[in-house]
Amino acid sequence: MQRQGALLLVGAGGIIGAATRYLISNALLGISGTLMVNVLGAFMLAVATTTLQTSRAQLFVMTGILSSFTTYSTFAAQTVAASPLIGILNIGSNYLLGITAAICGLLVGRRLA
Amino acid sequence: MQRQGALLLVGAGGIIGAATRYLISNALLGISGTLMVNVLGAFMLAVATTTLQTSRAQLFVMTGILSSFTTYSTFAAQTVAASPLIGILNIGSNYLLGITAAICGLLVGRRLA
Repeated sequence: MQRQGALLLVGAGGIIGAATRYLISNALLGISGTLMVNVLGAFMLAVATTTLQTSRAQLFVMTGILSSFTTYSTFAAQTVAASPLIGILNIGSNYLLGITAAICGLLVGRRLA
Repeated sequence: MQRQGALLLVGAGGIIGAATRYLISNALLGISGTLMVNVLGAFMLAVATTTLQTSRAQLFVMTGILSSFTTYSTFAAQTVAASPLIGILNIGSNYLLGITAAICGLLVGRRLA
C-alpha cells in the first residue's frame, strides 16, 4: 500500500480513537478515566494483534483507532501532577492492569483466531 | 462549548497525532519507535499543560494531537510480545524517561507561561 493510503487509514482511525477516549474520559474524570481507556485499549489491541490479518485492517484498527484511544502522555502528566502517593499508585495500577489486560487479550485473541 | 464542537476539535487533532506517530514509528521500528513518541509526547503535553489557556486549544492540541500521538496499548502489546528481559527494560525505560520528560516539560512550560 502507498504511504498516502496508509496515512489516510491511520488518520481516519485516529478520529474515532481520540473522540471515543474523550467521551469516556469525560464520563470518568481524571486519572481513573485514563486508566480505564489504557487498560481497555491494551486488551483490545492484543486481541486485534492475533485476529486482524490484512495490513489495511491493522493500520485502521490498531495503529489508528486503538493506539489513539489509549494515551501515554496524559498518564505521565496526570502522574506528575498528582500527590506522590496517588502518583505511585497510578504507575503501579497502569502497569499491573495494563500488562495483565494485554496478556488476557492475547489469550482471548488466540482462541478467536 | 457544545459537545459536538469539542468532538470535532479532538477528532481533528487525532488525525494529526495518529498520522505523525505512524510516520515516526515507521522510521524507528518497534519498541524504540513507541518509546520515542511516548517520551516526546509526555514532554510536549506537560509543556502544553502550563502554556495553553483556552479550552479550544487544550482540546485540539492536548486531548486531540498529543494524546493520540502517544500510545499505551502499543507499548503494552510490544512489552508482552518481547522477551522477558527486553519487556522489563521497556517498562523501566518508558516509566523512567516518560515521567522525567513530563517533569522537564512542566519546568520548561512554567518558564514559557
